[in-house]
Amino acid sequence: MTRYIVTLATCTVLLAAGVRADAQPDPLPSWNDGAAKQAIMEFVKDTTTEGSPKFVSPAERIATFDQDGTLWVEHPIYSQVVYCLDRVPAVVKAKPALGKVEPFKTVLLGNREAIAKLSMNDLIKILGATLTGMSVDEFEAEAKAWLASAKDPRWKRPYTELTYAPMLEVLKYLRANGYKTYIVTGGGQDFVRVYADQLYGIPPEQVVGSAGGTKYGYDKNGKPFLTKEPKLLLNDDNAGKPEGIHLMIGRRPRAAFGNSTGDRQMLEYTKAGDGQRLAMLVLHDDAKREYAYGPARGLPDTKVGALTPALADEAKSKGWIVISMKDDWKRIFAFDE
Amino acid sequence: MTRYIVTLATCTVLLAAGVRADAQPDPLPSWNDGAAKQAIMEFVKDTTTEGSPKFVSPAERIATFDQDGTLWVEHPIYSQVVYCLDRVPAVVKAKPALGKVEPFKTVLLGNREAIAKLSMNDLIKILGATLTGMSVDEFEAEAKAWLASAKDPRWKRPYTELTYAPMLEVLKYLRANGYKTYIVTGGGQDFVRVYADQLYGIPPEQVVGSAGGTKYGYDKNGKPFLTKEPKLLLNDDNAGKPEGIHLMIGRRPRAAFGNSTGDRQMLEYTKAGDGQRLAMLVLHDDAKREYAYGPARGLPDTKVGALTPALADEAKSKGWIVISMKDDWKRIFAFDE
Repeated sequence: MTRYIVTLATCTVLLAAGVRADAQPDPLPSWNDGAAKQAIMEFVKDTTTEGSPKFVSPAERIATFDQDGTLWVEHPIYSQVVYCLDRVPAVVKAKPALGKVEPFKTVLLGNREAIAKLSMNDLIKILGATLTGMSVDEFEAEAKAWLASAKDPRWKRPYTELTYAPMLEVLKYLRANGYKTYIVTGGGQDFVRVYADQLYGIPPEQVVGSAGGTKYGYDKNGKPFLTKEPKLLLNDDNAGKPEGIHLMIGRRPRAAFGNSTGDRQMLEYTKAGDGQRLAMLVLHDDAKREYAYGPARGLPDTKVGALTPALADEAKSKGWIVISMKDDWKRIFAFDE
Repeated sequence: MTRYIVTLATCTVLLAAGVRADAQPDPLPSWNDGAAKQAIMEFVKDTTTEGSPKFVSPAERIATFDQDGTLWVEHPIYSQVVYCLDRVPAVVKAKPALGKVEPFKTVLLGNREAIAKLSMNDLIKILGATLTGMSVDEFEAEAKAWLASAKDPRWKRPYTELTYAPMLEVLKYLRANGYKTYIVTGGGQDFVRVYADQLYGIPPEQVVGSAGGTKYGYDKNGKPFLTKEPKLLLNDDNAGKPEGIHLMIGRRPRAAFGNSTGDRQMLEYTKAGDGQRLAMLVLHDDAKREYAYGPARGLPDTKVGALTPALADEAKSKGWIVISMKDDWKRIFAFDE
């Protein structure tokens, strides 16, 4: 009997070894071989190999991702701004007086050129009217309904399909290696939370974004609910990103991914920690498959937050790695061939 | 050979069955049998049994715990307030002018009766001077040093040993069943984060508390750091608790534990959700082993936030379960026999 047991045990060992000896499937199949892919693979290997001097304990494995332009398309206009503009008719229907004043009049007329010329102050009025004043549950329902129907004019697809396949692979790869993945976005925290789980596998509690206050109250049946208030608690962009990370996570990230000047401080803060750290910037240099803007055009871009030549220089000097969409990514979207 | 394989397989099955048939160890050994223990056990069973109409998906398993008076001793004075008072000499040493004005003069004199009479405004000045103005790293180092040396005058033990053993069991039991456990405290978020992992197994990113802003800046070497600012972003008490839960977690808890009027809205908000919910209040009615205050003394307590008779009545009418420290807990602290 002993002989057979040994045989069985040997089989088990061989089977286990066989599994190990198999070539691991490439965790980043949408990436071309190159410095960017290699940096990600090495970072994960170094920080998760026990005994490695660069090992990072599982609890400390925090990775933060900007959203607009880093995980999905931000050009030519942030999806959330489209959402707010699309919501204006419903808001005016509920409060007809608004339709007689600017900037709501212009938005209702639907003249794209006039809308594009609205000032930052006008935009803030539109955001305030469309993102606050309702209960958090109502807001969630409205945003969900919009996401299910709205389409990007260039690709004629829902915005939810315009996520970058290579970055989804990075998210999964990091999570498979014990990293907790967070979104740290200048966009609205409540807005991104509506779809972050479905699109990125990131639960609401791991979405850090620009956040307004809420107010606790009771409906006529005594049931409590929260109303979204026009009071900004956290402007989660630029220096607000490390401030938001401290507020919401309380740990310094080990890895951070961005694409614009709005991510500069998050990347600086990440790299300033001790031990192994990874900082990466997505460069939009693929006019054919997506867009080219920022230094890819050789010019500082007027678009708020785009990766500028100055930021590209800072990246070079500080060991941040720039991801070229054109060169590093085999495909941009999951629907690409 | 086949026979032996079958025998081995059978053994394996029997072994596995044997493990399953073993009586499970009691997950709450510090609890006496009673309505409170039963409510916790049933809640976990109902919400984690697949196919049960009360099943809750793992992603939705969020449990929130007040800290002071719910997870550790808060009487007669919050540990964090002791910390702030203890920090006053060091703060005055750094800024001598403070030592000549109230309330710092009174604190420096060390007259306990006079200190106990300080107004809320005085307290806010002390909190401001001792909790802000330094980098988040300096603050963490100072709080850690204090926790390592300070002792509670009654038990002559570090504050960190004054956690309630039965509640630590509840935290572990919920986590073993897929619940993500959060602290939701009126105390300082940064303060509680310093020790929450060590004391409760709760990582910094799962501590929601009263939080001030931070300011991003650079030291003389260009290294970025965050400074704690005297600007309150979230007063995480009373209605601030559900507001803080929305801000920091973005999901309604399935279970919430508190002990005072400051937890009323968190419990209301938790129970107002659909499906199975659990709301519990710790009643301090054990003058011998800990303290008796609030309705246990038959009187509204003057202590800010204590469980009042009115709150006990609300609990009864709304199906919240009151935990009697005297009757429900076999032991209070891990160091009790």
